[in-house]
Amino acid sequence: MHKLLKTDGQARRGYFETGHGIFQTPNFMPVGTKASVKGIDCQRLREAGTEITLVNTYHLWLRPGPELIQELGGIHKFASWGGPILSDSGGFQVFSLNSLRKLEEAGVTFSSHLDGTKMFLSPEKSIEIQEMLGVDIAMAFDECPPGDLPHDKVKQSLELTYRWAERSVAARKVPEKTKLFGIAQGGIFKDLRTKAAEMVSSLPFDGYAIGGLSVGEKKEDMYDVLSYHPQQLPADKIRYVMGVGTPEDIVEAVNNGVDLFDCVMPTRSGRFGRAFISGDEPYINMRGSRFKKDLRPLDENCSCIACQRYSRAYIHHLFQVEEMLGPTMLSLHNVTFFLTHLAKIRAAIETGSFGSYYSLIKEQWRKVTLGKNK
Amino acid sequence: MHKLLKTDGQARRGYFETGHGIFQTPNFMPVGTKASVKGIDCQRLREAGTEITLVNTYHLWLRPGPELIQELGGIHKFASWGGPILSDSGGFQVFSLNSLRKLEEAGVTFSSHLDGTKMFLSPEKSIEIQEMLGVDIAMAFDECPPGDLPHDKVKQSLELTYRWAERSVAARKVPEKTKLFGIAQGGIFKDLRTKAAEMVSSLPFDGYAIGGLSVGEKKEDMYDVLSYHPQQLPADKIRYVMGVGTPEDIVEAVNNGVDLFDCVMPTRSGRFGRAFISGDEPYINMRGSRFKKDLRPLDENCSCIACQRYSRAYIHHLFQVEEMLGPTMLSLHNVTFFLTHLAKIRAAIETGSFGSYYSLIKEQWRKVTLGKNK
Repeated sequence: MHKLLKTDGQARRGYFETGHGIFQTPNFMPVGTKASVKGIDCQRLREAGTEITLVNTYHLWLRPGPELIQELGGIHKFASWGGPILSDSGGFQVFSLNSLRKLEEAGVTFSSHLDGTKMFLSPEKSIEIQEMLGVDIAMAFDECPPGDLPHDKVKQSLELTYRWAERSVAARKVPEKTKLFGIAQGGIFKDLRTKAAEMVSSLPFDGYAIGGLSVGEKKEDMYDVLSYHPQQLPADKIRYVMGVGTPEDIVEAVNNGVDLFDCVMPTRSGRFGRAFISGDEPYINMRGSRFKKDLRPLDENCSCIACQRYSRAYIHHLFQVEEMLGPTMLSLHNVTFFLTHLAKIRAAIETGSFGSYYSLIKEQWRKVTLGKNK
Repeated sequence: MHKLLKTDGQARRGYFETGHGIFQTPNFMPVGTKASVKGIDCQRLREAGTEITLVNTYHLWLRPGPELIQELGGIHKFASWGGPILSDSGGFQVFSLNSLRKLEEAGVTFSSHLDGTKMFLSPEKSIEIQEMLGVDIAMAFDECPPGDLPHDKVKQSLELTYRWAERSVAARKVPEKTKLFGIAQGGIFKDLRTKAAEMVSSLPFDGYAIGGLSVGEKKEDMYDVLSYHPQQLPADKIRYVMGVGTPEDIVEAVNNGVDLFDCVMPTRSGRFGRAFISGDEPYINMRGSRFKKDLRPLDENCSCIACQRYSRAYIHHLFQVEEMLGPTMLSLHNVTFFLTHLAKIRAAIETGSFGSYYSLIKEQWRKVTLGKNK
């Protein structure tokens, strides 16, 4: 279902086919946690260049519930998004939002972060919910260990994740409608990542994801994992790095053969005043007083409404006076910026010039590391 | 500058000319307090049918300041709104947001509600700020007495407002660029309203406003004032009722010869979950569980994105899970609804059928009074 069109070094240009149309790869999925990409309506989302979005199984399970979404015709109709939709398995939220939980072979028992209701999530339950939502791509249910877990604990976790992956595959009821991706974990340990890749690749998934990155580990450690791990996953299937990342992280991963990304960064950063831009600085904080009289757009190369119609001075003002148009405009801009970044990556691979685009982005972000552009 | 095209009973159909183009009358101004109609960008605002917007002098005086807006090219460029803009005088906010204030013949001394800074607003200062903003229409600086003030106090206030109106007229520096409207006050007292109309009409304003309605008085009292007061203002000038109101209030006022309105109701109600609709009920609260499975649009006759793309069930969900898209979509819908209401009023006057549209709206709202549709 993932068709490769061209490669440029390890970077891959292709497309992936779903029941709701294809999406080009490499691509980025804006995150619509509760069936809404925060602050952006479905029409503006499409205008931003979105081809596929992600929803969170955990949140939709709690509210409004998969039964309701199914009854109302499925997630596409509910959220008024006609293109492909991927859901995560719910595992990440169970492990990150709920401190009171009990992990067993069967699954995880935890209390809802909303009202304390006792809940139980397992591979079978997760797949059932995701298929009820009617997403195009579901994720296998895995344990998401914290970034600082020691080697032996990560190893144990891997083995559980493998058994859960087998159960996730077995639990599928509508494989023709909802594709299923497996997830390789393994922390920052090369031997465990290698083992995880072998294990997950042995199962008949429609795509393979790398989990457990951008969960608190050092950037060098993440880049180290990216340097070998994607290549350990099947070359003929789509490769997806979950929850990553900055525009720099994305070129780094694409440079190592990754095809798909998701991250809350564009919308979350936008709500807090950060705008990603092209040029010398990779991002600017619009709360800064240096923008008070800046009549330039956020990014003169951007086609979003915020850049076409408003000045930095005005957007600075919106944040100063706490007008909600500030967060919504920056969210829209950042999503547009990320998707434009991915479109440039695809164009670069097509023309065999990914290397120079990669260098350009690395150079732009190098200055951030040096601390010149806080 | 206000040209009458047609009348139907007391209802008037016309247009008003400004340096930034004309707007049709009767019309409604969405309120952009801090140079932003809350949650709606300038493009969607135009698509909603907006012809003229209102900004608050008090808020823009505090942040970012009229000097900055002037330096950056004026309010139209700042807010990216090319059409007409009207500003209030700042008086209403000084009187409603600041409990610690000193009222004198010269003006009002008060403390900023933001940081307590001592500030002084007078007719001269208000006109200076409004002209610096570069609005098309400024309002005279008046005292805004509370709705429950007794007759003798309102009378005193009227006289001060008259002297301030004279000073507002005298303070103008760019009358060809910024028009000036006077304001009649007088509470709910017919003799004082009559006196106020005489006084303000004696001054050379470009338009005449009715202030002090919808400030806590009973609906019957407001409708009583509307029944005679607009007719006391010059027939050849535009008549504007400030801060009003519901779709019913608007037809009531138009039926008595009013041409222009502003109100925060569409956006404020929208943020709290209320949607104005056509049909049996004049509005619905989207937080209500009865909308949980309602696949209909908010209003099937509405052209806004919220109605074209989303169901009531989805919008109910957005409010349940506190997604910002809920407030922004309802704000956009309500602004579209109000402006469509005004367009229908204009069309009805043109075709001599205002009476039946008036009856339709009164009938729709009669049920609210009866308490059937809370």
